[in-house]
Amino acid sequence: MEIFEAFLVFFFAFLCYINGAGCGYIKYNTESRIIEGKLNVHLVPHSHDDVGWLKTVDQYYLGFNNTIQGACVRNVLDSVVDALVRDPNRKFIYAEQAFFQRWWAEQSVQKQEEVRKLVNLGQLEFVNGGWCMHDEATTHYIDMIDQTTLGHRMIKDQFNETPRAGWQIDPFGHSAVQAYLLAAELGFDSIHFARIDYQDREKRKEKKSLEVIWRGSKTFGSSSQIFTNAFPIHYSPPNGFQFEVFDDTLPVQDSAHLFDYNVEQRVYDFIEAAMTQANVTRTNHVMWTMGDDFQYQYAESWFSQMDKLIHYVNKDGRVNALYSTPSIYTDAKNLADESWPLKTDDYFPYADNPNAYWTGFFTSRPALKRYVRMLSSYYLAARQLEFLVGRRSSAPQTFSLGDALGIAQHHDAVTGTSPQHTTNDYMKRLALGALEAENIVNLALSCLTNSSSSEQCVAPAINIHQCPLLNISYCPPTEDEILDGKSLVVLVYNSLGWSRTDAIRIPVNDTNLEVFDSKGDSIQIQYLSIDNATSNLRNFYTKAYLGTSPKQFPKYWLVFQASVSPLGWNTYFINGGRKGTRTSEYVSVNTASQNETVDVGPGNLKMYFSATTGQLKRMINVKAGVDIPIQQSYLWYGSSSGDINSKASGAYIFRPNGSPAVPVSRSVPLKIMRGPLVHEVHQQFSSWIYQVTRLYNDKEHAEIEFTIGPVPLEDGIGKEVITRMTTNMVTEKTFYTDSNGRDFMKRVRDYREDWSLSVNEPVAGNYYPLNLGMYTVDKKSEFSVLVDRATGGASIEDGGLEIMLHRRMIYDDSRGVVGSLDETVCVEGTCEGLTIRGNYYMSIHQLGTGARWRRTSGQEIYSPLLLAFTHEKMENWIASCVTNATTMDPNYSLPPNVALITVQELDDGNVLLRLAHLYEAGEDADFSRMAKVELKKLFAKTKIHYIRETSLSSNQDKSKMRKMSWKVEGDNEGYSAPLRGGSVDKYDLIVELGPMEIRTFLLKF
Amino acid sequence: MEIFEAFLVFFFAFLCYINGAGCGYIKYNTESRIIEGKLNVHLVPHSHDDVGWLKTVDQYYLGFNNTIQGACVRNVLDSVVDALVRDPNRKFIYAEQAFFQRWWAEQSVQKQEEVRKLVNLGQLEFVNGGWCMHDEATTHYIDMIDQTTLGHRMIKDQFNETPRAGWQIDPFGHSAVQAYLLAAELGFDSIHFARIDYQDREKRKEKKSLEVIWRGSKTFGSSSQIFTNAFPIHYSPPNGFQFEVFDDTLPVQDSAHLFDYNVEQRVYDFIEAAMTQANVTRTNHVMWTMGDDFQYQYAESWFSQMDKLIHYVNKDGRVNALYSTPSIYTDAKNLADESWPLKTDDYFPYADNPNAYWTGFFTSRPALKRYVRMLSSYYLAARQLEFLVGRRSSAPQTFSLGDALGIAQHHDAVTGTSPQHTTNDYMKRLALGALEAENIVNLALSCLTNSSSSEQCVAPAINIHQCPLLNISYCPPTEDEILDGKSLVVLVYNSLGWSRTDAIRIPVNDTNLEVFDSKGDSIQIQYLSIDNATSNLRNFYTKAYLGTSPKQFPKYWLVFQASVSPLGWNTYFINGGRKGTRTSEYVSVNTASQNETVDVGPGNLKMYFSATTGQLKRMINVKAGVDIPIQQSYLWYGSSSGDINSKASGAYIFRPNGSPAVPVSRSVPLKIMRGPLVHEVHQQFSSWIYQVTRLYNDKEHAEIEFTIGPVPLEDGIGKEVITRMTTNMVTEKTFYTDSNGRDFMKRVRDYREDWSLSVNEPVAGNYYPLNLGMYTVDKKSEFSVLVDRATGGASIEDGGLEIMLHRRMIYDDSRGVVGSLDETVCVEGTCEGLTIRGNYYMSIHQLGTGARWRRTSGQEIYSPLLLAFTHEKMENWIASCVTNATTMDPNYSLPPNVALITVQELDDGNVLLRLAHLYEAGEDADFSRMAKVELKKLFAKTKIHYIRETSLSSNQDKSKMRKMSWKVEGDNEGYSAPLRGGSVDKYDLIVELGPMEIRTFLLKF
Repeated sequence: MEIFEAFLVFFFAFLCYINGAGCGYIKYNTESRIIEGKLNVHLVPHSHDDVGWLKTVDQYYLGFNNTIQGACVRNVLDSVVDALVRDPNRKFIYAEQAFFQRWWAEQSVQKQEEVRKLVNLGQLEFVNGGWCMHDEATTHYIDMIDQTTLGHRMIKDQFNETPRAGWQIDPFGHSAVQAYLLAAELGFDSIHFARIDYQDREKRKEKKSLEVIWRGSKTFGSSSQIFTNAFPIHYSPPNGFQFEVFDDTLPVQDSAHLFDYNVEQRVYDFIEAAMTQANVTRTNHVMWTMGDDFQYQYAESWFSQMDKLIHYVNKDGRVNALYSTPSIYTDAKNLADESWPLKTDDYFPYADNPNAYWTGFFTSRPALKRYVRMLSSYYLAARQLEFLVGRRSSAPQTFSLGDALGIAQHHDAVTGTSPQHTTNDYMKRLALGALEAENIVNLALSCLTNSSSSEQCVAPAINIHQCPLLNISYCPPTEDEILDGKSLVVLVYNSLGWSRTDAIRIPVNDTNLEVFDSKGDSIQIQYLSIDNATSNLRNFYTKAYLGTSPKQFPKYWLVFQASVSPLGWNTYFINGGRKGTRTSEYVSVNTASQNETVDVGPGNLKMYFSATTGQLKRMINVKAGVDIPIQQSYLWYGSSSGDINSKASGAYIFRPNGSPAVPVSRSVPLKIMRGPLVHEVHQQFSSWIYQVTRLYNDKEHAEIEFTIGPVPLEDGIGKEVITRMTTNMVTEKTFYTDSNGRDFMKRVRDYREDWSLSVNEPVAGNYYPLNLGMYTVDKKSEFSVLVDRATGGASIEDGGLEIMLHRRMIYDDSRGVVGSLDETVCVEGTCEGLTIRGNYYMSIHQLGTGARWRRTSGQEIYSPLLLAFTHEKMENWIASCVTNATTMDPNYSLPPNVALITVQELDDGNVLLRLAHLYEAGEDADFSRMAKVELKKLFAKTKIHYIRETSLSSNQDKSKMRKMSWKVEGDNEGYSAPLRGGSVDKYDLIVELGPMEIRTFLLKF
Repeated sequence: MEIFEAFLVFFFAFLCYINGAGCGYIKYNTESRIIEGKLNVHLVPHSHDDVGWLKTVDQYYLGFNNTIQGACVRNVLDSVVDALVRDPNRKFIYAEQAFFQRWWAEQSVQKQEEVRKLVNLGQLEFVNGGWCMHDEATTHYIDMIDQTTLGHRMIKDQFNETPRAGWQIDPFGHSAVQAYLLAAELGFDSIHFARIDYQDREKRKEKKSLEVIWRGSKTFGSSSQIFTNAFPIHYSPPNGFQFEVFDDTLPVQDSAHLFDYNVEQRVYDFIEAAMTQANVTRTNHVMWTMGDDFQYQYAESWFSQMDKLIHYVNKDGRVNALYSTPSIYTDAKNLADESWPLKTDDYFPYADNPNAYWTGFFTSRPALKRYVRMLSSYYLAARQLEFLVGRRSSAPQTFSLGDALGIAQHHDAVTGTSPQHTTNDYMKRLALGALEAENIVNLALSCLTNSSSSEQCVAPAINIHQCPLLNISYCPPTEDEILDGKSLVVLVYNSLGWSRTDAIRIPVNDTNLEVFDSKGDSIQIQYLSIDNATSNLRNFYTKAYLGTSPKQFPKYWLVFQASVSPLGWNTYFINGGRKGTRTSEYVSVNTASQNETVDVGPGNLKMYFSATTGQLKRMINVKAGVDIPIQQSYLWYGSSSGDINSKASGAYIFRPNGSPAVPVSRSVPLKIMRGPLVHEVHQQFSSWIYQVTRLYNDKEHAEIEFTIGPVPLEDGIGKEVITRMTTNMVTEKTFYTDSNGRDFMKRVRDYREDWSLSVNEPVAGNYYPLNLGMYTVDKKSEFSVLVDRATGGASIEDGGLEIMLHRRMIYDDSRGVVGSLDETVCVEGTCEGLTIRGNYYMSIHQLGTGARWRRTSGQEIYSPLLLAFTHEKMENWIASCVTNATTMDPNYSLPPNVALITVQELDDGNVLLRLAHLYEAGEDADFSRMAKVELKKLFAKTKIHYIRETSLSSNQDKSKMRKMSWKVEGDNEGYSAPLRGGSVDKYDLIVELGPMEIRTFLLKF
């Protein structure tokens, strides 16, 4: 023993002499670049910094609450910058601008200059570059674009750089829209992520097909393809190469003076891990993601080890290790003479093991999801209005709301996979942002409507209010007594490029009201008693959200129809004191039926209900000539409480307990309210599910308002509540769901295009995310459902569609330490399960004609009319205000297949304009064609001096965007260029848009 | 709610404007210095880096095994230096040179230059500056000096700096020698620590007497006093001000853009904590120890928060916060017009709560403690020999052993309070160091003894061996057959400055041996059969330590007397083949007695044993005329297994279970071996305790060899094994124990000088550390016991002394996660409790005459004769070698009251010389006087060109050492200067030493 030790002493001393190293200062050689003919191990240092999860975004940034999770992003960025300065060969990639910009704002001018150098030298590379790493299942494409633009513009402004790589390493499945729109159309060369279905991954490792060329769009095909890298394991390094401060990883010990010298061992480990990965990867380039969640709290701890590994591994020479980034890696892949597998469709649903389908989060926290969606369109409208009256630096800004919405797109935010305190923080940010935006909207409406308004319109001349809680019948300006001969003035703003007519519903206390249009003419109205479900919601939730309980309860909904010009507004006046008691004529009442079947519907759409069971039996669109037997009911899946591996249903994972879905009720009482504008069918399915079906006289769809909650847990069973619609259509396992509210993807039950699926979860494994809606077809008809927020949907039996609307459960699914998804709301210490309210929409069409409804109604559901209220004398108002106008050319309207998805005045005075064609190629006979938008008419009130087309995030000229070419295995696309609009003539200023095309411009007025 | 939130938004925006801060980059003002008239909060950033504890020293340094403890000292030093460079106002103190020097050696020249600047500017201040933060209970003063010198010299060489502050923050109690010798005599102005008795602390907080002027030496009084700062809580910051990366501490949040702004709250917290401390502290200066164990893994995490606190607290202005160091703090205290309480004696024993006396570690791991002590004197001798033949850079060095011993003095090393794997590492380092030192000794002995040796003596001409396992009768050169007419040559080196005669014992196989002295004359020998206890030890432990089992077992101890000149050697030759069978004459045999009492002892000391019980009954020193009835027995305290607060006995804490100590046996068989040189009394007290009492013909003390173990645990009770000596002396609760082997401290049972003691642990609370020994007196006699290693001792009843020799237990005392102290030794998978073997020594004297034995024998026990062996022809050897010599003037010897405690050739060629007077003032009528050492005669073979007296650690000129003056409360010392030697005349070269004086010189030859 002692002799052996003595040998070691001399051996190490000897090492010092022969190596000239290991006994003092060692200069590590980190200069290596790619070497042809060797296996190149690209070390990509990164920190995955969730924009809120177990802690809030600010807590993560500042290092609060480290007991929950030891994470301080400020430390990450501080220490990474130091580490990069120390050695020009070191590199680091960073994604989340919500964090980076917090940090950047705190830095001194010198530090900013230092960082700018690092960025421009490529040592610090921004990947993704959006405000957050957005989710891909529960996000709307407009939000994805907005949050990406927010980050990309700042990177462009501060560093004059454009990110090249998509870095969606953590989101729970990957969407087609992400691939072709939020990657290719941003100018990205590649996209990288970790989470794909475990079966898919195994197959791909076997076939070396983790890396593919992904063509996410049927419409654009190869013209919007992207090199896609799915990681073989996760976004952490191979085992044993994690070097966070406090990690128990074997450091490289190269000092001959100390014990435990292990250079050869660590080099061996490195090569072995590299070879393992090389065996599942094409070309001689493999990427190691050198990081994990909130790593690099002390960056030197990682870099010092990577320096040594690069030094010694390259000295060994069997493989070549280098500091790299996803873009360097992608360039290397592109240069290699290799053909890549083709991937179409998307990567949903995601499962990480046989019983863990991450399809619960499609629906988790439905109230948050609705709030995000509601504010998404509000943000769109607010920016329009901000632009229309001109931005003022001293006034409130839309930035707060954009920031909050950007954060909310994070893959643990809108997904509903954060614990309650973080969710509250998201909500609070949204509420604060909305409040500031509301001030902008109020100011803008005041300025726009004031006919004498000049450019100096800086403060609202009038006291304008909005009612974010209108859906639960809380709206002080409409409930308040109208005094002094004044009217309740209702300003209605339409953020769509088309004129539209919609029913307005406001809570009132009287039935002696009269509604006048902008010209002062009385118009038709209808009263509906406010049901108990709504009154109870109003009572509880105003207390919960506002802290006070309003004095009195409004008794009626007052309904009337508003018509508004494109990008314009209209004004309605409501006067009280109407004499006479024509109440019976106006207040809709329940009309009992003597027949077995009750028909409802004042217009072309009729619905038939069973008078005995109260169940829906049939829908008929008289005009379209479609008649489909259809039932609709509420059911719940019992949540699995887990087993020995604790695979319970939870915020992420949907796992039914194996029993079929339980119907909430088999028969329900029917209450039908009829009036001139709308028929309503009220059904109390159970003590915790209330439904109102509304059929308007001018709409060909049914609007279903559901009120669900508190979901009972007293039986000890978590519940995942669905609405299920059953038709007799022969759908052959097939249905269609949207991708981020844009393209529709074909789904086939128990089937995946890329591999032969082992079905372990026959329900959960067939759920897909919905943002716009879903539909199914047979040889004659289409049956479509649209949704008002992100949710999950499936077709578990032919002819049927189901949507999951609410979830409440007892157990945790053990993906992090989020806890069980059991949302409660408390008033004075009394808590109950969260009740949610929302709408979905059903329609039936002849085969091939449903798209028009889905696209147009989809856009209207996304962008409802914006309502604002004040009390003024009608005569005065009409005399001094513009009551009805468009900001466009009065004779112009956008074509019905085009939506104006962004108008925003930027910090530099440029205006960002985004136009979107709403149809896919071949989706509609008339509308899947080239569309034209005349900018001169769109911006009729002002003159465009300059126009420049850019990438989707507006950070580079469209004309200068690079496109990498890739060889694709068995590429038989038979290339036909997709229809895309031509360049915009600066005199004509006419923008063409091919199907699905989104075009982004920077304008100067 | 929303209105409130909106208010906040505007409030924060408003803050940005009025503060001009909080909304972007903030330059924190950290410039503050002391402000008179304000409460000054000295923030002292530090990291307490144990030189091995839960992990080994290298594991701590490199960051291995972070699962055990997240700690990487390299990260600490890397990141602290970065943080200091960032702001010249930041400061940091560092203590442990064992770590710092590992780090320093790895740095580039540029980095070293950068660090040198930081040190010279006072940003990085070395405190303590020794190799480790040594323990103060279980360390010998020579080791304390050596390990401190090792660090101090490097700091001097590298930075030209001398540490000013003692920083013993963690050791478990504090010794008088630490205060006056390892602080004042080092040139320190102050000493700082956290651990004092909880009762003492409470009293001191009440009286504001945590800070005192400590005069640890009775001999030197105020001339070796030190300002001493005992912390009010621990060496961590006040609650809520700990800022390690990942700590869950509220960071200062001063960004108006983010949530949770808390500047005012944190300033309030700071002031409150400062006031709390001010209430227990004199003057308007308080120190916050901003650190803890292995903190500053990412230093910026601490400094960034301290920057903010200093900035905002000083802006607030109620108190003044500043970056500081112990020396700045001490200067401030010194400048204040304040009188300080006086402290004499020491801070032992330490208890942190009523049932937790840290008196177990005095004895824990007795084998380690013995190994350290044995190598301490070996290191001393090896450096002498290295000096005597001249250091060679290519040859083995004593540095490894110095390094290992330096590390071993750490307060979790020699204390026995580290887990087994760390203890093994300490042992391994010691073994490797010893092995290298053994080579030096072999080489030096070969050169010295070779009469033709020139300065070029570079390799041993002969094959010399030493026998570290001699105590268990393993010594291959003495066991091996002596071939070819050769002799077994025994080289005996004496590292003391006096000539001495001692019995040599070596294991042999034959009884036909003859021993010759250096002149070739045959000398008297004695054989003793090797007992079974020793054979069994040899068998098991050679397997365990060497991995092999020697072929045959030696049967006899061969004993003879060796006489060696001061700092010299002698040679003995052992020849075999002696004819005739005079075995009976030589092999001692058991002599049964017919009497009730058996007397033993060939010389002046006689011992009387009961023939029936086998127990010791009486000791008589015939010559001195002292006769004391005395019993001696082994007992064990059952270890407390803890209670609801888990206060068990463990590595740190001694807590008996409440029962009285259990005697191991009431009667033992006696086996007495008599011979001309020594009488031995063998007593098997139990299956696991074997004792041999040796009375030599020329010594007046009894040498007791104990062999204890495996301590049985089968009864589920941990055992703390003591030897107890009971006399009839009237000792009035009083006894004396040494301080680090140097001064003797008066101890009174159940009494503390500084406060009225509440006795909660009547046994454990009366234990004190022993390094040299203990004694007690009555009006006539003294009874003294000396020990061979650090241990604990007490006088639990009048007239009795007891020493704890071994400990083995089942539970952990929960001070860290060390585990239970259950040392086992394994051979081929079979493990058993550790057996230990050692000696203690008893002697009796007339009152007032014991010191001479204690001091002289103490020094001889510390520095035994060094033995080396070879096989050579006696005639050749005598012809070609110097067989008997001194390196001093042949007619010179050091005075009996002076020891040569260091002679060492330094890297720069200087020779470090340390001389120690061994007696306290008044301790001995003859020897407590001024002593003189003639350096010319001491170094007779060479010429001293230059001599310079220095501080104890040789890092500054003695004449230039600063002395602070302090006002002391009720100072009635009636100052009489202690006797100290005058300056050394460079021609005479005579060094005077007053009582207890240690003088350090740098010489050039």
